[in-house]
Amino acid sequence: MSALEHVLIAGQWTASVDAQGSFRAADPTQAEAIGPSFPVSGAADLEAALAAASAVAVELAAVPAAQIADFLDAYAAAIDADADTLVALAHAETALPTEPRLRSVELPRASGQLRQAAKAARSHAWTDPVIDTAAGLRAHRAPLGKPVLIFGPNNFPFAFNAIAGSDFASAIAARNPVIAKAHPSHPATSQRLAQLAHQALLASGLPAAAVQMLYHFDNALGLKLAGDARLGAIGFTGSRVGGLALKVAADKAGVPIYAELSSINPVFMLPGVLAERGAALAQELFNSCMMGSGQFCTNPGIVIVPRNADGDAFVAAALKHFSEATPKVLFSQGVQQGLEQGVATLLGAGAELLAGGNAGDGAGYHYQPTLLSVDAGTFIAHAEVLQTEAFGPVSLLVRADDTAAMAALAASFEGNLTGTLYRAADGCDDDVWQAIAPALRTRVGRLIANKMPTGVAVSPAMNHGGPYPSTSHPGFTAVGMPAAIHRFTALHSYDGVPEALLPVELRDAAVAGLQRLIDGRWSDAAVGTSA
Amino acid sequence: MSALEHVLIAGQWTASVDAQGSFRAADPTQAEAIGPSFPVSGAADLEAALAAASAVAVELAAVPAAQIADFLDAYAAAIDADADTLVALAHAETALPTEPRLRSVELPRASGQLRQAAKAARSHAWTDPVIDTAAGLRAHRAPLGKPVLIFGPNNFPFAFNAIAGSDFASAIAARNPVIAKAHPSHPATSQRLAQLAHQALLASGLPAAAVQMLYHFDNALGLKLAGDARLGAIGFTGSRVGGLALKVAADKAGVPIYAELSSINPVFMLPGVLAERGAALAQELFNSCMMGSGQFCTNPGIVIVPRNADGDAFVAAALKHFSEATPKVLFSQGVQQGLEQGVATLLGAGAELLAGGNAGDGAGYHYQPTLLSVDAGTFIAHAEVLQTEAFGPVSLLVRADDTAAMAALAASFEGNLTGTLYRAADGCDDDVWQAIAPALRTRVGRLIANKMPTGVAVSPAMNHGGPYPSTSHPGFTAVGMPAAIHRFTALHSYDGVPEALLPVELRDAAVAGLQRLIDGRWSDAAVGTSA
Repeated sequence: MSALEHVLIAGQWTASVDAQGSFRAADPTQAEAIGPSFPVSGAADLEAALAAASAVAVELAAVPAAQIADFLDAYAAAIDADADTLVALAHAETALPTEPRLRSVELPRASGQLRQAAKAARSHAWTDPVIDTAAGLRAHRAPLGKPVLIFGPNNFPFAFNAIAGSDFASAIAARNPVIAKAHPSHPATSQRLAQLAHQALLASGLPAAAVQMLYHFDNALGLKLAGDARLGAIGFTGSRVGGLALKVAADKAGVPIYAELSSINPVFMLPGVLAERGAALAQELFNSCMMGSGQFCTNPGIVIVPRNADGDAFVAAALKHFSEATPKVLFSQGVQQGLEQGVATLLGAGAELLAGGNAGDGAGYHYQPTLLSVDAGTFIAHAEVLQTEAFGPVSLLVRADDTAAMAALAASFEGNLTGTLYRAADGCDDDVWQAIAPALRTRVGRLIANKMPTGVAVSPAMNHGGPYPSTSHPGFTAVGMPAAIHRFTALHSYDGVPEALLPVELRDAAVAGLQRLIDGRWSDAAVGTSA
Repeated sequence: MSALEHVLIAGQWTASVDAQGSFRAADPTQAEAIGPSFPVSGAADLEAALAAASAVAVELAAVPAAQIADFLDAYAAAIDADADTLVALAHAETALPTEPRLRSVELPRASGQLRQAAKAARSHAWTDPVIDTAAGLRAHRAPLGKPVLIFGPNNFPFAFNAIAGSDFASAIAARNPVIAKAHPSHPATSQRLAQLAHQALLASGLPAAAVQMLYHFDNALGLKLAGDARLGAIGFTGSRVGGLALKVAADKAGVPIYAELSSINPVFMLPGVLAERGAALAQELFNSCMMGSGQFCTNPGIVIVPRNADGDAFVAAALKHFSEATPKVLFSQGVQQGLEQGVATLLGAGAELLAGGNAGDGAGYHYQPTLLSVDAGTFIAHAEVLQTEAFGPVSLLVRADDTAAMAALAASFEGNLTGTLYRAADGCDDDVWQAIAPALRTRVGRLIANKMPTGVAVSPAMNHGGPYPSTSHPGFTAVGMPAAIHRFTALHSYDGVPEALLPVELRDAAVAGLQRLIDGRWSDAAVGTSA
């Protein structure tokens, strides 16, 4: 096993103590192994990572905010400076386009996210301080005092990487140690990121065990770890099956888990907007559905289209795009197989194949852009199975006779990350909007007008979250600072505690720029002064 | 079954459709049945309640905030006006003292809580609006769009009643329909409250099915209901065993559950403060431990006392109080049996009996004030079993040789609602504080200085919550407006949605008095104006 790459535990790059095997990345375009061999960690590695992270949790919770922020900023700068190497590694392991996707979009997004987390840490903005001088009570959000376990997904090698993405930035900003579980689809990318994180960590003076990284472990060990009460929380982005298994384990141990599971992101084309610009919308749908070969959690998986002449024209235009497209490269054999199964499930439940429906020709992992169609009645009669996520360049059109059918469809959806309504600029669709939006609103995290759901801005007003089963909790977002940080915090109240023994943001003195709710009024001034 | 009292479903007082049996309240002082017979609801009642609440959820989510607030205020006024009747009913069913507890403390607390919830509803303060004009994104907290199921506990017939307490006020303030499950210890009190709620509801013009109330159902039906995905969330206050069973069911269905389970509320007596005023603290401990016959979730169940002369004097003084006291009345036979079991468990794990330890003489349900002691080493060696909650007038002293032993104890505790440190006024204990507080802090929701944990102020800076297993989530409080409302909300983002189609607190116009995070700055002004 001496040839295996090292894992990062307790501030050291170290050989896996009990590797259960090894694996290599694959070039998705050729289905051939590339790069070095990485260990599949055994129970001893997991225990060492958890013990090391646990041992520094209370110490890390007490470090100054500026020290955490400096680390995040330094790590962001290191990622930017290392862009050539990181992009080359990620491109080789994922086949995602170098430009614009990896270099101009995702990598700056990842480093920008770390900087936003640094800013939130430095400003204490995520701590939501509340001071009640009459009652002698002061409360804020605080570190969990336990490690956060993060599982990264296959589809964003930078921006959702367990060692660099939003979950990582959020957990660290709240001063929690992290155990990152990389996705085995891009181990070398994750390793490179972890090296940059490790260097920045050592330079920062933070506890060296603030960050660990493992590349892979089997499902049974993952469930055991997720069910360990020494964890403070879990962040997960990935498949519904995997996420729900982890959720069962975590729930049993009382460990909060923030799992982003799956979403089909219904898009309603209202009648007026199709009359206004149906052909352009067909192009928009196609473009959105092909982004990252459709391997986006916000992929437009269901499109509701009126059954009328404008709807028919829209479908014909969309069908032309899908039919003329070449197969799209997928991340892995697993994704291809899952997609084949998903499409088969949809067809078996009554969907009609309009285009694609097979892998297509060529080397590597791929799938033909696929358009399916079903009528609203069939959809509602088999709503559960027809909401099966087909993770890839696939969309299911649902044809609706009238507004009532559209409203019934809205009420038939499970929880989703997003729901979109395309409406005409002249307002002629707004009665239909009002008939659909209330039911749709309660079923989605982000309600979108006139835009495809792909494209998730890193904004404090973003909600990249949604009702179950799109995520495990309807109250939290995985993207957007400082809101995403709230997932990895505990509510701490201090009752009658002398000022000198309070954390900095709850003392009388103001924290520059920090708004606090003091005796019922928001203020950035010191306690006892009028703002 | 025609003699059974009616349940409240879909805005109607109606006979139970499928009562599985009946029950009556008991006078705890005599262990004799009192009052009318109430139905134990069957599956059809539960389904009817869930269906009725579900049917109005989207409608209720859209009502104006003022209408909700008016209902809450009217209900609060009705409770105050009906105090004589309510207090008499609650006293008969719980044996809690009429004065000051029921009339002067708990009833005003309950109506005050409803008014605070009304104020939060009217001000929209719980919605946390965030506006990012550059990104076209606006987000806030919003109703769940599904009913909230609330299980009330035995120990607060007004302030935590499923039909009137903090969970109820919180869920309604966020415009969610409620299914209240009263505690069978005080059905007539709950019925009277529900009648007042129902009258206020009908007068308010809100959907009549916004509130349902059932008195009792068996555990299996409760688990089935808790696991129904039509629920938006669950609020529970009660025993750990019951709460964890509901949590398993809810977790499986992806229903967020906010369960307040159990807490032993460790209290550290630091060396200096015992030298300063040990005798007074022994009285404080005794008084706190006897409140409500010790049937408080914040009862001081564990007291850490230095093993030195001051510690010995404190223990002797406390022992005198406990020894001289008469048996305390308990709510029910179940509480008495649970307490007997709990004390037996503690004794079996090595605790020594100093006083009490038995039910004592007399009619009804009761238990002798009980003081136990154990050394720190034994406690740590059997930490899990010695943290068994003994719900009643019982406290376990843990004798610690030195600061290191105290710190080790702090690190041995499970999650608790509260942790208390008594320190000397001259600061001589502060080194010991610093040695203990960091580990204790991460294990409790509220860190208290120089006060017993009983007494939970309704303040926005309160945290009546704590890490698992004291509650099911470390990030939320069950008491304190508007924070408690956050439990029953979903995060909603709007992306590119025209202003006219936005909810009121996200439109450009200011909402009087409402602070919003607009483009990174907190402001109560309209979007586009400088505050």
